[in-house]
Amino acid sequence: MDWTNIFATRMDRMKASEIRELLKLLDQPDIISFAGGIPDPALFPTQAFQEALTDALSPANSSAALQYSVSEGYGPLRDWIVDQMAELGVPCTRDNVLITSGSQQALDYLGKMMLSPGDTALVTWPTYMGALGAFNAYEPTYDRLIPGGNRSAQDYAETAEASGGRVKFAYASVDFANPTGETLDLKARESILDLADDLDIAVIEDSAYQSLRYDGDPIPPMLALEIARKGNIDACRTLYCGSFSKSLAPGLRVGWVCGAAPVISQLVLMKQAADLHSATLNQMAVNTVARSVFAEHTTTLRRTYAARRDTMLAALAEHMPEGVTWTKPEGGMFIWLTLPKTIDGGDLLKSALEAQKLAFVPGQAFFADRSGANTLRLSFSLADDTKIVEGMKRLGAAIRAAL
Amino acid sequence: MDWTNIFATRMDRMKASEIRELLKLLDQPDIISFAGGIPDPALFPTQAFQEALTDALSPANSSAALQYSVSEGYGPLRDWIVDQMAELGVPCTRDNVLITSGSQQALDYLGKMMLSPGDTALVTWPTYMGALGAFNAYEPTYDRLIPGGNRSAQDYAETAEASGGRVKFAYASVDFANPTGETLDLKARESILDLADDLDIAVIEDSAYQSLRYDGDPIPPMLALEIARKGNIDACRTLYCGSFSKSLAPGLRVGWVCGAAPVISQLVLMKQAADLHSATLNQMAVNTVARSVFAEHTTTLRRTYAARRDTMLAALAEHMPEGVTWTKPEGGMFIWLTLPKTIDGGDLLKSALEAQKLAFVPGQAFFADRSGANTLRLSFSLADDTKIVEGMKRLGAAIRAAL
Repeated sequence: MDWTNIFATRMDRMKASEIRELLKLLDQPDIISFAGGIPDPALFPTQAFQEALTDALSPANSSAALQYSVSEGYGPLRDWIVDQMAELGVPCTRDNVLITSGSQQALDYLGKMMLSPGDTALVTWPTYMGALGAFNAYEPTYDRLIPGGNRSAQDYAETAEASGGRVKFAYASVDFANPTGETLDLKARESILDLADDLDIAVIEDSAYQSLRYDGDPIPPMLALEIARKGNIDACRTLYCGSFSKSLAPGLRVGWVCGAAPVISQLVLMKQAADLHSATLNQMAVNTVARSVFAEHTTTLRRTYAARRDTMLAALAEHMPEGVTWTKPEGGMFIWLTLPKTIDGGDLLKSALEAQKLAFVPGQAFFADRSGANTLRLSFSLADDTKIVEGMKRLGAAIRAAL
Repeated sequence: MDWTNIFATRMDRMKASEIRELLKLLDQPDIISFAGGIPDPALFPTQAFQEALTDALSPANSSAALQYSVSEGYGPLRDWIVDQMAELGVPCTRDNVLITSGSQQALDYLGKMMLSPGDTALVTWPTYMGALGAFNAYEPTYDRLIPGGNRSAQDYAETAEASGGRVKFAYASVDFANPTGETLDLKARESILDLADDLDIAVIEDSAYQSLRYDGDPIPPMLALEIARKGNIDACRTLYCGSFSKSLAPGLRVGWVCGAAPVISQLVLMKQAADLHSATLNQMAVNTVARSVFAEHTTTLRRTYAARRDTMLAALAEHMPEGVTWTKPEGGMFIWLTLPKTIDGGDLLKSALEAQKLAFVPGQAFFADRSGANTLRLSFSLADDTKIVEGMKRLGAAIRAAL
């Protein structure tokens, strides 16, 4: 059976990643891995979820918890998010919030909403690999977003037209981005809004790591900055994607999009057609847990992860050979290394796995143009101090061997 | 802010349904509604889910239950489905099963996998409204599938070519279909497989109601019939969509696709890009509940729903005026009425709501060509006998008033 004639053209862009396949093999206990960008399960608020689920399945709630529910999401959870957004400088109402199955689904839906084949999406070089994966299904062209850069809107527009479409949005991860750990400063955020206004495009603000700031001053979300310009959220072009995956637990798949009500109502129709709604039970449980332990729990997360970041930064300073540079993130889960130009991250992964029993993610897959061969991503969220120190020692050895 | 230039062309086909909007207003207690096709929450296996969730969050399991997991789905649940499929005459392995967030998501993914704009999807007139909604996002043309009909493959192919694409699949709900309640007999199933072979297209077999057969002999799924023809599942073009929404509970959003491994692996990549995975906790809970109470619980459901169906059929026989006909489903949740040609289902709904405090779904929205104005769908899953009898009396009065 040959499916070639049956698959849609978009399937040409849905290929298994060689790196992902390689990293699947990492569950061996003797390998030290900094590859996965995942929360430490030892920190999950399990007891709070246990209580919340028991409550959701109590006689008063179980009929709703196990039943179909509305596509826009569970009202009380949307209300909690409204309060959370207000604290971030985003006054809004329930009608500005759609619950999604993780913020990954928000990226998929936003790509689906805006991209026709040949349209252009602006992304940074590098950017979140999962955003490229989500958008790829809608067959865009990518062009490079340089926050604070001086390329003209006209040049972007003409380049997009030459690719057979129009620029539809700029996508940016604003705080402690995956993969670089870097944060966009106020000027960079304003510059993206300027460009978006000039091009008449949307802005997708990926804020999955927002609650994991360890030091430095918080910077307002682009959505807050745009509301300050335009007066109210419904006049804004920024669509903010939030997530409970990093603050509470990823296994429940609960995230959200916050933006102009007319866009949210279109996304509600899309969600109704695509999966009806996110699991009712999970939304109820996340609502209960968020209301009971969010502040306290994220404080614990920040304390723990900050210490791991500090350990990794210190170990990098000790063990990296000259010519290697890295980011100093103010939060999140990632540090980004730039290697000497002669070293390929993919080759380094193979040799590090073999000679050092060490894993990380080579950086190339985060670049829409497949540049960035001499980069790699380390996650510090999952390893204890001993492993981090030993791991950086091994990484130093692996890089030296490749020099 | 005008989003017209930013939205993808597909958004032209994502419109709020007037009927859905009307039916949203039905939560008033004095209205008798047969509109929603939803399970009776009084029948949910709440206790079993409570125990399963407690177990999933026990110290041995909670790290996995709350963590990211693989896109293909929870292994033990896929194994349970493999056993279930074997009982239906579909020998397969874990690699033939992808867990989705309800079978609605399976329909979305299958549309996404196969449809480029202008391609043709074959659907029955009428068909499941949610399938049209899911497929619409990929901008297909629809052509009419007539199971057992004698239109030639060549004619279908030429019609599709004239629409600027190719026929990609035939979609059919096989058992007690939403909205008609009708079941495709063996000959009809074989005829769809013949047509699919002739056209070199896929078959999407929607089997959401499979476990709700009240009488009559089970008919093998099309996937089983195709395996009988071709020797093994990986040589088959049928993709079977199953769901726990009707057998256990819809609020957890767990369904599956079963089909050829090369297609499943493409769908896994699609799911990874679209929402990473279905909620881990939910898959673990459904696995536990399915293994403990599936057979016993679905027996209870069948007994209860069968009695409601019988009550509705008897009440229809008593209260419908001449010229009204209806289906006699062997299972599922729906009875489909055909009214005299002069009566429009949408108009009837408005007058029935006003004069009779009665609701149902007008049939037109289930027709890809917007024909079927003189039809309507009744669901018998949610109402007790008293309401069913009173409701059919009111429906008879509403129809008489419209004659």
